[in-house]
Amino acid sequence: MKITLIGSGNVAWHLGQVLQQAGHEIAAVYSPTAAHREELAEALAPAEAVNSLDLRATDVELVVIAVPDAAIASVAETIQVPKNAIIVHTSGSQPLAALQGITGARAGVFYPLQTFSKSKSVDFNAIHILIEAEDERTLQILQAVASTISKEVHHVDSLKRKQLHLAAVFACNFTNHLLGISRQLLQQAALPDTLLQPLIQETIAKVMQSHPFQVQTGPAVRHDQNVIDEHLILLQDQPLYQQVYQLLTQSIQDHSPKR
Amino acid sequence: MKITLIGSGNVAWHLGQVLQQAGHEIAAVYSPTAAHREELAEALAPAEAVNSLDLRATDVELVVIAVPDAAIASVAETIQVPKNAIIVHTSGSQPLAALQGITGARAGVFYPLQTFSKSKSVDFNAIHILIEAEDERTLQILQAVASTISKEVHHVDSLKRKQLHLAAVFACNFTNHLLGISRQLLQQAALPDTLLQPLIQETIAKVMQSHPFQVQTGPAVRHDQNVIDEHLILLQDQPLYQQVYQLLTQSIQDHSPKR
Repeated sequence: MKITLIGSGNVAWHLGQVLQQAGHEIAAVYSPTAAHREELAEALAPAEAVNSLDLRATDVELVVIAVPDAAIASVAETIQVPKNAIIVHTSGSQPLAALQGITGARAGVFYPLQTFSKSKSVDFNAIHILIEAEDERTLQILQAVASTISKEVHHVDSLKRKQLHLAAVFACNFTNHLLGISRQLLQQAALPDTLLQPLIQETIAKVMQSHPFQVQTGPAVRHDQNVIDEHLILLQDQPLYQQVYQLLTQSIQDHSPKR
Repeated sequence: MKITLIGSGNVAWHLGQVLQQAGHEIAAVYSPTAAHREELAEALAPAEAVNSLDLRATDVELVVIAVPDAAIASVAETIQVPKNAIIVHTSGSQPLAALQGITGARAGVFYPLQTFSKSKSVDFNAIHILIEAEDERTLQILQAVASTISKEVHHVDSLKRKQLHLAAVFACNFTNHLLGISRQLLQQAALPDTLLQPLIQETIAKVMQSHPFQVQTGPAVRHDQNVIDEHLILLQDQPLYQQVYQLLTQSIQDHSPKR
């Protein structure tokens, strides 16, 4: 597949490299910032760094838009591609309709379900790729491309992808924040940051095997009001954390009423 | 060290086995339930199953109370031991003073900072053990015993242990609950349970290397109100989850004000 990448962020870097390694040709890289497109094009040599979204004179087959969510619509309205090229965006939270502004091309979604950091390489074979397209033929092509880099390819429509994104916010973004609060509490108590790491890893290992609601532990599920009260006192100078503690305790107890 | 175990739950099972493997003698196991004490004593053979908390006629040196938090005080008030024996409890949430009812013995805390399941073996060398004692000599003995089973032994007083326990509630109990909500949302969308597992593992791998507040991602930290509003609509039939979403979003944004 002859591919042009739009964007130079973490998704563009990782996806570009893994697609190239899988034998696809990364023909060009576009970014409005010259230094960014040149750096990524060099990493993906012999890819060309281009400064125009008019790709009509090229023979690109697949355009991958890997830009911030808010920029997708404006790229879609500006970009021009050869007839029959496929244009996909890579966002978990945006519907297929975010590409409705494109003309003369087939639209799709190619969403690698992972959080990327430029400095950390990832194993795409372990990454689920969620695809969607406006017609069956395009879907088949995206399925074929995704299969060259991952064993886990799923056809998921826009509504389900939004529901998945919501689930990911709970499982990853909110979880990360709670781990941050926990780290802050350790620091306030002058305890080492690393103290809870084995416990956190065991917690995650457990939920890979069981439904989390079935292995819930702690004072909330035990309805241990003495401990809960003592914790709330420890949090009295941090009212927002106190509210978080109370609401999550309530939500846990809602699932496990006192016997 | 000649040790008697009080209790037959997960902590007693794991701690008993690892102490025995380290060369200590598990002399006896007490549990009020005959079947429980006999099963554990058999696993720790030649340990004896005993049905009395009067241990004065024995030559036990260390008594490990591994019972539910609420039962510690009543065991402490009942138990009788040879002069100079050490009695420890194994609770993260209870102070040293929970043992104030004991007579003729030295009190301490021996808290293995891990979540145990009977069916899953654990590597104690990777488990932090937190110790505390009412005098320096007892502390040294507990330090020596703990060092035979773990490389990570810390002297942590009751207040700090309570703060640590609070941090663990955020990092493990609350995190587990959020992962449960996420799993439920996937199920409601008829998406496979395993879809988010690589993302969860990457989230945890990241926070082992960086402060979670520094690697926060998602719509909250981006102040992406469109996505937040869409997520709240998806949660409209689950008002408690909607509240959790709103409060955690607020707490994340409190750390990362809109620029």
